[in-house]
Amino acid sequence: MIGAISLDVDGTITYPDRRLHEKAFEAIRLAEGLGVPIMLVTGNTLQFGEAAAILIGTSGPVVAEDGGALSVKAGRLRKRVYLTKMDEEWILWSELKKRYPEAVMSFSMPERKAGLVVLRTVEVNAVKSLIEELGLNLTAVDSGFAIHIKKPWVNKGTGIEKACELLGIEPEEVAHIGDGENDLDAFRVVGYRVAIAQAPESLKEKADYVTEKPYGDGGAEGILHILRKFGYIGEDYEDPLGDP
Amino acid sequence: MIGAISLDVDGTITYPDRRLHEKAFEAIRLAEGLGVPIMLVTGNTLQFGEAAAILIGTSGPVVAEDGGALSVKAGRLRKRVYLTKMDEEWILWSELKKRYPEAVMSFSMPERKAGLVVLRTVEVNAVKSLIEELGLNLTAVDSGFAIHIKKPWVNKGTGIEKACELLGIEPEEVAHIGDGENDLDAFRVVGYRVAIAQAPESLKEKADYVTEKPYGDGGAEGILHILRKFGYIGEDYEDPLGDP
Repeated sequence: MIGAISLDVDGTITYPDRRLHEKAFEAIRLAEGLGVPIMLVTGNTLQFGEAAAILIGTSGPVVAEDGGALSVKAGRLRKRVYLTKMDEEWILWSELKKRYPEAVMSFSMPERKAGLVVLRTVEVNAVKSLIEELGLNLTAVDSGFAIHIKKPWVNKGTGIEKACELLGIEPEEVAHIGDGENDLDAFRVVGYRVAIAQAPESLKEKADYVTEKPYGDGGAEGILHILRKFGYIGEDYEDPLGDP
Repeated sequence: MIGAISLDVDGTITYPDRRLHEKAFEAIRLAEGLGVPIMLVTGNTLQFGEAAAILIGTSGPVVAEDGGALSVKAGRLRKRVYLTKMDEEWILWSELKKRYPEAVMSFSMPERKAGLVVLRTVEVNAVKSLIEELGLNLTAVDSGFAIHIKKPWVNKGTGIEKACELLGIEPEEVAHIGDGENDLDAFRVVGYRVAIAQAPESLKEKADYVTEKPYGDGGAEGILHILRKFGYIGEDYEDPLGDP
């Protein structure tokens, strides 16, 4: 049985330009209204995730910074939990900037606490080589927007496991919806898997369901599919936002 | 002539519980689609404001931290501008915590750079007295959620003036919509003023228009009123989200 839904943000509940998609927004509120907590899971900062949770109205923990940072509601305030800290990341940055003066940190680095994000003015392979040369216990991933450098054990899967612990449920009771390579880590720990239409084949192969529609339309489709599949809404539930 | 709209966030485009209101969301997208940039203006952190701008899809500068911090789009990245820094605020905190061990900082303090926010476990008057006793150039305001301590010249008005400079327009070309006492500072610099129904009398008195509806419904009403008033939509424009 599924009791919570974890959702990737960019590409899953948004348009390609990152704006929130109205249909996904509505589907999330439907799920929350039915008592199914939504957990947002993002590579973005914890502050971005918290703001998204407040504005969209999701009650589950937020998993951010590629899984290394969590935020849970505590009355009117929020409690933040970090699963890692910045140490080897700063050693890498120091050497990276020496070798590649064109290296630039993300504008969000002042608030990041669980990993280093640098712009794509350096090649991900150059970063990987440097990590190996320095013998650091880090991985580098090109998200398509930036290069994310973090501890190898920090990922969406470990983040969701910690979120479940805080929520008092098992990861098997979670359904995850995502559209990226890094959602594979989430797929490994949850009980039900949905890939958005534009996801890479590697993710679709592991999915229990692949949406027909892309981006936020697909996110809404995935949420309704899960609610139907696990009996929260009837088979004949009409999507109030569906095309007439 | 009005060429941009600045919007308070909490209570103006949200429900009372801070969730984004669907009608305000739609009205903002309508304005942006008509080429009227929206500037979000909030007492919340810059990171919250940036996330709101990305998710809602507003193109104007974000004014946050009570006016002391701005963020503007720069291609796919953002540029942050701070109008002040933390100095006397930390002196105050140090003494405040000594005298009132129950004093607690907001969970958002790690990312705040333009003012100190403490929870209401201490009285705003105790904070004000201490500022006076220490001879610090600071003001303390109880927002109803927390106590905001900042430089006296940092407010929504000075923030909007700086945002206009960055946007290349005059503050007189901006219409502002808000619901709080601190929106008076915005009202002082802009060319057209809208107060939301639940705003205090002090704000309503200074408004060119007071909405009939409260919260996000009122925000949507205010945006449509401005678009109509300044000829962006016809007098007979039907609110597509209006009650049938």
